[in-house]
Amino acid sequence: MSDVNAILLLSCADRKGIVAEISNFIFRNNGNIVHADQHTSKADKLFFMRIEWELNGFGLKREEISAAFTPLAKQFKMKWDLHFTDYTPRMAIFVSRHLHCLHDLIIRRHMGELAADIEMVISNHLDARDIVEQFGLKFFHFPVAPGKKNQTEAEELRLLKRANIDLVVLARYMQVLSRKFLHYYPDRIINIHHSFLPAFAGGNPYQRAYDRGVKIIGATGHYVTEQLDEGPIIAQDVIKISHRDAIPDIQTKSKDLERIVLARALRLHLEHRILVYGSKTIVFE
Amino acid sequence: MSDVNAILLLSCADRKGIVAEISNFIFRNNGNIVHADQHTSKADKLFFMRIEWELNGFGLKREEISAAFTPLAKQFKMKWDLHFTDYTPRMAIFVSRHLHCLHDLIIRRHMGELAADIEMVISNHLDARDIVEQFGLKFFHFPVAPGKKNQTEAEELRLLKRANIDLVVLARYMQVLSRKFLHYYPDRIINIHHSFLPAFAGGNPYQRAYDRGVKIIGATGHYVTEQLDEGPIIAQDVIKISHRDAIPDIQTKSKDLERIVLARALRLHLEHRILVYGSKTIVFE
Amino acid sequence: MSDVNAILLLSCADRKGIVAEISNFIFRNNGNIVHADQHTSKADKLFFMRIEWELNGFGLKREEISAAFTPLAKQFKMKWDLHFTDYTPRMAIFVSRHLHCLHDLIIRRHMGELAADIEMVISNHLDARDIVEQFGLKFFHFPVAPGKKNQTEAEELRLLKRANIDLVVLARYMQVLSRKFLHYYPDRIINIHHSFLPAFAGGNPYQRAYDRGVKIIGATGHYVTEQLDEGPIIAQDVIKISHRDAIPDIQTKSKDLERIVLARALRLHLEHRILVYGSKTIVFE
Amino acid sequence: MSDVNAILLLSCADRKGIVAEISNFIFRNNGNIVHADQHTSKADKLFFMRIEWELNGFGLKREEISAAFTPLAKQFKMKWDLHFTDYTPRMAIFVSRHLHCLHDLIIRRHMGELAADIEMVISNHLDARDIVEQFGLKFFHFPVAPGKKNQTEAEELRLLKRANIDLVVLARYMQVLSRKFLHYYPDRIINIHHSFLPAFAGGNPYQRAYDRGVKIIGATGHYVTEQLDEGPIIAQDVIKISHRDAIPDIQTKSKDLERIVLARALRLHLEHRILVYGSKTIVFE
Repeated sequence: MSDVNAILLLSCADRKGIVAEISNFIFRNNGNIVHADQHTSKADKLFFMRIEWELNGFGLKREEISAAFTPLAKQFKMKWDLHFTDYTPRMAIFVSRHLHCLHDLIIRRHMGELAADIEMVISNHLDARDIVEQFGLKFFHFPVAPGKKNQTEAEELRLLKRANIDLVVLARYMQVLSRKFLHYYPDRIINIHHSFLPAFAGGNPYQRAYDRGVKIIGATGHYVTEQLDEGPIIAQDVIKISHRDAIPDIQTKSKDLERIVLARALRLHLEHRILVYGSKTIVFE
Repeated sequence: MSDVNAILLLSCADRKGIVAEISNFIFRNNGNIVHADQHTSKADKLFFMRIEWELNGFGLKREEISAAFTPLAKQFKMKWDLHFTDYTPRMAIFVSRHLHCLHDLIIRRHMGELAADIEMVISNHLDARDIVEQFGLKFFHFPVAPGKKNQTEAEELRLLKRANIDLVVLARYMQVLSRKFLHYYPDRIINIHHSFLPAFAGGNPYQRAYDRGVKIIGATGHYVTEQLDEGPIIAQDVIKISHRDAIPDIQTKSKDLERIVLARALRLHLEHRILVYGSKTIVFE
Repeated sequence: MSDVNAILLLSCADRKGIVAEISNFIFRNNGNIVHADQHTSKADKLFFMRIEWELNGFGLKREEISAAFTPLAKQFKMKWDLHFTDYTPRMAIFVSRHLHCLHDLIIRRHMGELAADIEMVISNHLDARDIVEQFGLKFFHFPVAPGKKNQTEAEELRLLKRANIDLVVLARYMQVLSRKFLHYYPDRIINIHHSFLPAFAGGNPYQRAYDRGVKIIGATGHYVTEQLDEGPIIAQDVIKISHRDAIPDIQTKSKDLERIVLARALRLHLEHRILVYGSKTIVFE
Repeated sequence: MSDVNAILLLSCADRKGIVAEISNFIFRNNGNIVHADQHTSKADKLFFMRIEWELNGFGLKREEISAAFTPLAKQFKMKWDLHFTDYTPRMAIFVSRHLHCLHDLIIRRHMGELAADIEMVISNHLDARDIVEQFGLKFFHFPVAPGKKNQTEAEELRLLKRANIDLVVLARYMQVLSRKFLHYYPDRIINIHHSFLPAFAGGNPYQRAYDRGVKIIGATGHYVTEQLDEGPIIAQDVIKISHRDAIPDIQTKSKDLERIVLARALRLHLEHRILVYGSKTIVFE
């Protein structure tokens, strides 16, 4: 347990004394805070905090912390989550035929840059199978079959549950997930959209960026909600284009963006740096 | 005439031999090309060119060039414009109450950075009067009066014509110009929109960017057409924001962007680097 | 006093309980924290904090806070500063012949965007006089005279002291300040260097960037120390260039960068967001 | 031969008529120009051009073009190269222990994004062997042996020649190549340096960027010359960092930059968009 930290993510109505109470809780138990970040939304009078401290030397065992913190959380009516840095989340990747983000995640995992395990890759196509299996990962094929969406999703959900999946990544997955599916993974499904949202939400963003003649294109990593492409944005980035960039050039430039933005969004999620708040995020970088 | 260059901007259907014919025309007349840039749009089979050469030593007088070039232009059915670098375009700036872009243009002109004369500033408010007059420029006030839009625009147009205005700049001007007004200055009215178009077209982009929770905001310089915020885009730029940025912070960051993007769009126009093509631009940077 | 906040900037050796003690101090006195940001430098075991709370409702009068906080500061051997948001710092701007940053600061102050008063402009040339006086500001001319540097600086220092200057801004000032001069304004002299430091430290950065053929140029805002161009960096930004950019183009692009980077560095200083730490800065944005 | 283009890269002293002569050469042979870009360096009176036309319908066979163009090239004393777009260059990658750039190139090749064949990977370590062989590529191990540098390089050169290597990529290769080695591949060895050159040339740029407290880090793709880290720069990019970024964070951010900058530099080289000119490059994007 030598190098393990605890991370508390919390939000509540803003009140005097919150910081004092939380830092006292940790100090009382002889904890050493290594990071703390907070934000107060003045308009909504809400308070958000991420606080990380060392378990090493802490007066409570990790399994005692939740119970010990609960009275304080109740007093301030907090929404809160407790995480430990030695847990490696279990991830499922959904992908269709554009494989650049999948490749990138596989390589990052291979290099030890991705703080999650890729438990499985699910696709409605077979294109990804070879590379997935080449890296010793599990591949499941669920072809789209008219009238069978419910059944397919049910099977996918069963797989995800059996594997105790913590996080679903849509790495250019071209199918819309049902409300029911989303319900099982609130704020735990991350999508990469190949435009600078809210510009070019929906289909065909490369073509539409080209047709509109924009001088910059972008990519957006966001949590998936029922309103397609309207989920809370985690990360965005952009790159310049010019009249010389035809659609294949836009695609080439965008693919690098998409890889990086998805990887950044994932890192922020996996390091427990994100609090979702309505349709927005607080990201403690 | 020692340092004056001629600039030819042209477009036509793509055909073999265009570049040869144009460069022969200049070579035949003993011209020295200092810049040339071209673009072929494969999809539409269109050819675009900007070519700049020295008048010094050129075999034709400046007033003879148009006539001499016309047969070639006809042969290829070109749309074309001829400019000379010693002409200083005459500019009118329209502004409402946000003066940062106006201030920036006045200071750039004062520093000799803006290759145009500010012939007049027109506003529906009085806020800009003092600074405009402090720099010895003309200010005209046209308050918005219900039912008098046509009359106001007619008076403004009369002012513009009398002053031989070449270019109208909407430097955060909060009124919509009529179709008739636009008709007099095709591809010669430049607007700065305080968002990354097409995201947040229309009103209140700061508020809407904040509400959506985007992580990057932008600004767009574009030619004005009848479809509000849908004119050909000249220049765009962006800046990162975070959950810490409330609307005043977004505004502060955006104002710097708007100044720079508008100045860049103007510079490109004034250096005759832009060809408008449908709802898009070719920008030869 | 309704909207005034107190801001505490502090640093000390990292120890358990610091955050708890400081937040208790504020909570005990019924203070409402509006912002708090902290950083622990693991390598050096140092703790840095910026904490801002409302004076409105706070149990101590503003003149009592220092005395009340002192025991805690002593206990943790803190370096600390206390600021109030209703004080407008008094600024002197030094400039030579490149006036773009000066213009920008004058215009920002004119628009109410700069949270400081420009008490005076000092120059070794006369170029800036007209614009400075046009805006009703004081201008002092100290031409460079061989063998008289000490005397000139002494006179300048007398002016600065008489005017209770808090902050000196070198807005493209081409003279080196003596060790003695710097001594009077530790971490309170901000310079804009027209390169991406440490690249092209020293003279002629535009020319050297051009000669080296870099594809990106930059600007750096930093505190001035005896080691020229080696002071703690506050802010940097960059812009792309290409082989098409000759030195005048590089200069034009850089000038916009310099304005923005200097304004950003100033804003961070004036909002008390910077802690200097060796040759580096902690910037709580 | 249906979709093959010819690309001519040339430079010479600037003279009237160059463009006319070159475009006439192509027109005379019934060629259709698809791209043309040129640049005149005023200071040095040099002319640079990249011109691309379709072989389809061209009046000369590909093997006749060089001979037919030679008289014109001689007349203007051009340096020139002729390329055809259906030739896939043969690449060797040198790497040490940081494999992120190697991984990226392998994946790009796998996805068909890299217009070159990876003929071999050479390393002074064994770390890369598994992934290289997993993708069916050749791996050669040349451990560093004191006093055997000449011999090792001779063996490497023999391998490169036997495989008709066109381009050597140093994808974080930690050995210095000898003058003799470089001599065999002038302007055909591309290195990725993990800093924004000329800042932090030489070793340990992450550490030195951290120590200096810069707010932005960069990466540079350049041709390798005898002066280490002083070769002609092809591409650069940057990313913001803050005091929160310790050296591992800087490394993580930089690795994404390095991948993208190296890939961009390679793409520009492989598309024959670069003319080297002294210690600088002309890049026709």
